[in-house]
Amino acid sequence: MVFQESFTVATRGRGSYLITDEAQQRVRGSGIGTGLCNLFVHHTSASLILCENADPDVRSDLERFMARTVPDGDPLFEHTAEGPDDMPAHIRTILTDSSLMLPVTSGRCDLGIWQGVYLWEHRTIPHSRRITVTVYGE
Amino acid sequence: MVFQESFTVATRGRGSYLITDEAQQRVRGSGIGTGLCNLFVHHTSASLILCENADPDVRSDLERFMARTVPDGDPLFEHTAEGPDDMPAHIRTILTDSSLMLPVTSGRCDLGIWQGVYLWEHRTIPHSRRITVTVYGE
Amino acid sequence: MVFQESFTVATRGRGSYLITDEAQQRVRGSGIGTGLCNLFVHHTSASLILCENADPDVRSDLERFMARTVPDGDPLFEHTAEGPDDMPAHIRTILTDSSLMLPVTSGRCDLGIWQGVYLWEHRTIPHSRRITVTVYGE
Repeated sequence: MVFQESFTVATRGRGSYLITDEAQQRVRGSGIGTGLCNLFVHHTSASLILCENADPDVRSDLERFMARTVPDGDPLFEHTAEGPDDMPAHIRTILTDSSLMLPVTSGRCDLGIWQGVYLWEHRTIPHSRRITVTVYGE
Repeated sequence: MVFQESFTVATRGRGSYLITDEAQQRVRGSGIGTGLCNLFVHHTSASLILCENADPDVRSDLERFMARTVPDGDPLFEHTAEGPDDMPAHIRTILTDSSLMLPVTSGRCDLGIWQGVYLWEHRTIPHSRRITVTVYGE
Repeated sequence: MVFQESFTVATRGRGSYLITDEAQQRVRGSGIGTGLCNLFVHHTSASLILCENADPDVRSDLERFMARTVPDGDPLFEHTAEGPDDMPAHIRTILTDSSLMLPVTSGRCDLGIWQGVYLWEHRTIPHSRRITVTVYGE
């Protein structure tokens, strides 16, 4: 059995947005009990991560780590058509993930207690990001 | 057809632990010939990697690379509740993978000759890590 | 329904090689309308990425970023049997992906308009890289 549905997240610019419930809700709706759930973001400047979901400092530390590792406006980059955050957004996406695969058990994504699913917007201005959820199993 | 089973790895602290056989054994047990095998680790401070499995220097070089790139005790980090390796463990997890997807062919994970499946423990003290294997196909 | 097929890419050494059509063609051949498509590279020194597919500067910037972050010949590395690019190739692979999961919708991989699928060769000399495509769904 396969279930598939897309949804859109309106971001307010760079930062991480919790979408665990968006995934769980679709898994419940699919009626699938045991299987896998795939989340896929259709963009090259936003990504999906599983991140600690209790202390917001984790995500601000992560943001600062990325800002230091892949700095906006780095003179190394020639692809700057959309501004100083253009190329860093592509690299951040590639260093993380465009797609997550989560086990479905007893009709829900079987996440660890601290695992939250986040959309990570890497561009500084707001964007609309399309995500597709595909669930399959029995 | 879907097969799913969890197992636990008791780590001895930071380092990589070969779990290729743990995966292959479950694929064999599933009776599935052609399909995909997903491995998922239910934690935010340990990850899964496919790594060269012949020369142990590869994994010690990798460990040193990560220690330099995401140093323990970095003053950049505010999330230090569980010690200097707390935030680096979350970042190492996000830079690598919580989940691996392996093709199943002729009843086994069709890995390249040098590809080993490793659980990578990022915390310095020992932990018990839960991993779920989901196999589906025909 | 499960479809599986392997193909080989002959690389001309370090760089990224567009393989979107190689994937789309197999999804079409599978006859599967809705589901998921997995691409898997059977090596530890080449990886798969989804990357912006319009401006070639993106991929040269990405290459330079990796060359700076994981430099060839870094004295940190002991695993140098195959040359100064040996260990960096393993690390680049682990920082990116050995496997991609793409949603299949209306009989094709539903990629975003700017998403291209690339094989990223990390060794400086040419190699033959085996990739397996697995498609399942209905």
